[in-house]
Amino acid sequence: MPHEPFDAVDVIGAKRDGRTLTPDQVDWVVDAYTRGVVAEEQMAALAMAVYLNGMDRHETSRWTAAMIASGERMDFSSLSRPTVDKHSTGGVGDKITLPLAPLVAACGLAVPQLSGRGLGHTGGTLDKLESIPGWRAALTNDEVLAQLESVGAVICQAGSGLAPADRRLYALRDVTGTVESIPLIASSIMSKKIAEGTGALVLDVKVGTGAFMKDLDRARELARTMVDLGTDAGVRTVALLTHMSTPLGLTAGNALEVRESVEVLAGGGPADVVDLTVALAREMLQAAGRPGTATTDPADVLADGRAMDTWRAMISAQGGDPDAPLPTARETEHVLAPADGVLVGLDALAVGVAAWRLGAGRARKEDPVQAGAGVELHARPGALVRAGQPIMTLHTDTPERFDRARQALADAVVIAPEGSRPPERPLVLERVAAD
Amino acid sequence: MPHEPFDAVDVIGAKRDGRTLTPDQVDWVVDAYTRGVVAEEQMAALAMAVYLNGMDRHETSRWTAAMIASGERMDFSSLSRPTVDKHSTGGVGDKITLPLAPLVAACGLAVPQLSGRGLGHTGGTLDKLESIPGWRAALTNDEVLAQLESVGAVICQAGSGLAPADRRLYALRDVTGTVESIPLIASSIMSKKIAEGTGALVLDVKVGTGAFMKDLDRARELARTMVDLGTDAGVRTVALLTHMSTPLGLTAGNALEVRESVEVLAGGGPADVVDLTVALAREMLQAAGRPGTATTDPADVLADGRAMDTWRAMISAQGGDPDAPLPTARETEHVLAPADGVLVGLDALAVGVAAWRLGAGRARKEDPVQAGAGVELHARPGALVRAGQPIMTLHTDTPERFDRARQALADAVVIAPEGSRPPERPLVLERVAAD
Repeated sequence: MPHEPFDAVDVIGAKRDGRTLTPDQVDWVVDAYTRGVVAEEQMAALAMAVYLNGMDRHETSRWTAAMIASGERMDFSSLSRPTVDKHSTGGVGDKITLPLAPLVAACGLAVPQLSGRGLGHTGGTLDKLESIPGWRAALTNDEVLAQLESVGAVICQAGSGLAPADRRLYALRDVTGTVESIPLIASSIMSKKIAEGTGALVLDVKVGTGAFMKDLDRARELARTMVDLGTDAGVRTVALLTHMSTPLGLTAGNALEVRESVEVLAGGGPADVVDLTVALAREMLQAAGRPGTATTDPADVLADGRAMDTWRAMISAQGGDPDAPLPTARETEHVLAPADGVLVGLDALAVGVAAWRLGAGRARKEDPVQAGAGVELHARPGALVRAGQPIMTLHTDTPERFDRARQALADAVVIAPEGSRPPERPLVLERVAAD
Repeated sequence: MPHEPFDAVDVIGAKRDGRTLTPDQVDWVVDAYTRGVVAEEQMAALAMAVYLNGMDRHETSRWTAAMIASGERMDFSSLSRPTVDKHSTGGVGDKITLPLAPLVAACGLAVPQLSGRGLGHTGGTLDKLESIPGWRAALTNDEVLAQLESVGAVICQAGSGLAPADRRLYALRDVTGTVESIPLIASSIMSKKIAEGTGALVLDVKVGTGAFMKDLDRARELARTMVDLGTDAGVRTVALLTHMSTPLGLTAGNALEVRESVEVLAGGGPADVVDLTVALAREMLQAAGRPGTATTDPADVLADGRAMDTWRAMISAQGGDPDAPLPTARETEHVLAPADGVLVGLDALAVGVAAWRLGAGRARKEDPVQAGAGVELHARPGALVRAGQPIMTLHTDTPERFDRARQALADAVVIAPEGSRPPERPLVLERVAAD
């Protein structure tokens, strides 16, 4: 057995006692965990100590670098275009990646969007795209590079070689009550994004009932931590805090969200999806900082069909047929407005859970998802509704799921007397940039 | 798989967030850990949350009861004498159990002293007794009962059936930096003592450089927690906080300490060992609360040889020969006084580590110990010494160990100018009884 420069109990004890871990301690503990020298139960104790005593900026940057060092790094330096990526912390109906990646590529940048699958009430980008007949998520690194050069955008499965220590640590945190630690969340997200090799990164940090972060202060702290981590690693990083108390757009579910994304690319679609797509695209162009592209207005590129052309090329390049009809669910049921009045609340978490229970999401990572399942909204907050009018349609292949979906929605809809208005909430709440 | 009433992540989360665990949660998490439903990494995260957020008296009592419920309980109710036990948190040269158990038995009580082996710098009672030719530590429960009835005292290995969950938890805490949590230390000690079935218990909580607890406040808190746990479980419990900054007596090491114990039983021996033995014996008689025995003075029973008779019977009953010569180490070396003056400091931890390095203790629980190894002191604090005079003798079978033992002792001896006095420190610092 090689001589180890540190003892796990000493490193755990330092964090337990509220001390700052040294760079060497951080490097060692992550590497030793990867090698199996630090055992799962030791990392669990350390994760709880980090949860309760925190890590400062330097520790978190070093921790992130150590996670990256546990695996491979991608290299996009051979590309003729600058790279820029977007990451969302996850929300209900958040299909923004689908129109955004081709839009930003059509503006002249390379967008390597390495994504994951959904778990719980927020959908996964790969699950959504897999509802397109023929489309495949798994690409080799060479295929990713080639497609970035030819099409400019790729949305594919993140390889298991990126930050493998983070993958193990995430599974451990999930069973030990140590998920919701800002330094650990931030380093988990950023280690994968930095390993992916993007030159610039825009973060969409969701805040509200349908988001992981329920309150603005915590979301701001997460955004600040991630922006600092990106900056420390030489990635130009900016974050938008965006509102997630009602679903984005009018759909939550795989094929339903692809359909809505295509509507946006065709110049239509719900205003909030269009607005957020354009806002994020502007941030990505600015972050990429390429002379010339900064003067391109993504709204024009969306309106004139160039983004749609790139979408079609991107889907085709991965085996998908952009013209094939999207799958639909076998059964549908309406949810009716319970009273006359103004729809003032439409809870994102409830809609997300309903879509999940209808079959759009999965409870365990090995579960399949239904392409056609989900929730379609017919009214958004502010709409005047009449009792008995359909305000949602539930879609599923397995009608025995309707009951549990309706249970999730029991308190989701709030109708106030005519003349009421829903609370004013801008979609983009704040912007967090490097200091 | 049977339905579980709780989820480990929820229980961990409750303690992580500073909440009090419910009795049902405590029962479940300990039982589920015993059954393997709560995994090691989950218990590690919970132990760290307990370390940092504590447990109150009710939680700690319930935790202790759950540890006891994980195994068997001994039953001494058939004995004609009341039972009383002593537990020391461990100190350097702490051989008190050896003269104390036969002394208290000679006063008319039954003393079931279920002990462990040493690990680290404090010796283990079983290791000491095993230096007596023929003596054996492992007895069946029936043998323990029979010896308690016939001799009145038994010092033997605690069965693995007592609080097995604690045994696993202790091993886990040892590798996860969660040993030094007062609720976990207290419940670990007390679960074994309560499961052992003693009617009364006297705790010797050591304070000082050579003890687990370095400061009086922490030692007092540990003593209070253990007294409360004993009281809550119906065991009459009292604790003495005793001084452990210099070694107890003049020996640290297995056969060396047996020799000194026999000197005490023969009416001689160092004053501090005699005084502490008698003080603890008085507490044990009082805690046992038997009419008549409370008027017996242990000092008389020690002086008139009755305690020695019981010692001889106790050793013989377990196969030992009380008349056999004790093993001695193959090699000895002196440590000389570096200057003329008054010996004002003789650090317990340093002497303990030196004895350990000479072969008296073990680094891992499977290591053997040397019966004859250890440190013999020729002067105690307050003594006037001359430069070059031997103040210690080091004993070992493996002379290559002398160097590292001397390194441990480098700063152990403090000599002040003639006329100086060592700090006044009473042996018994405080007494902690039930509220």
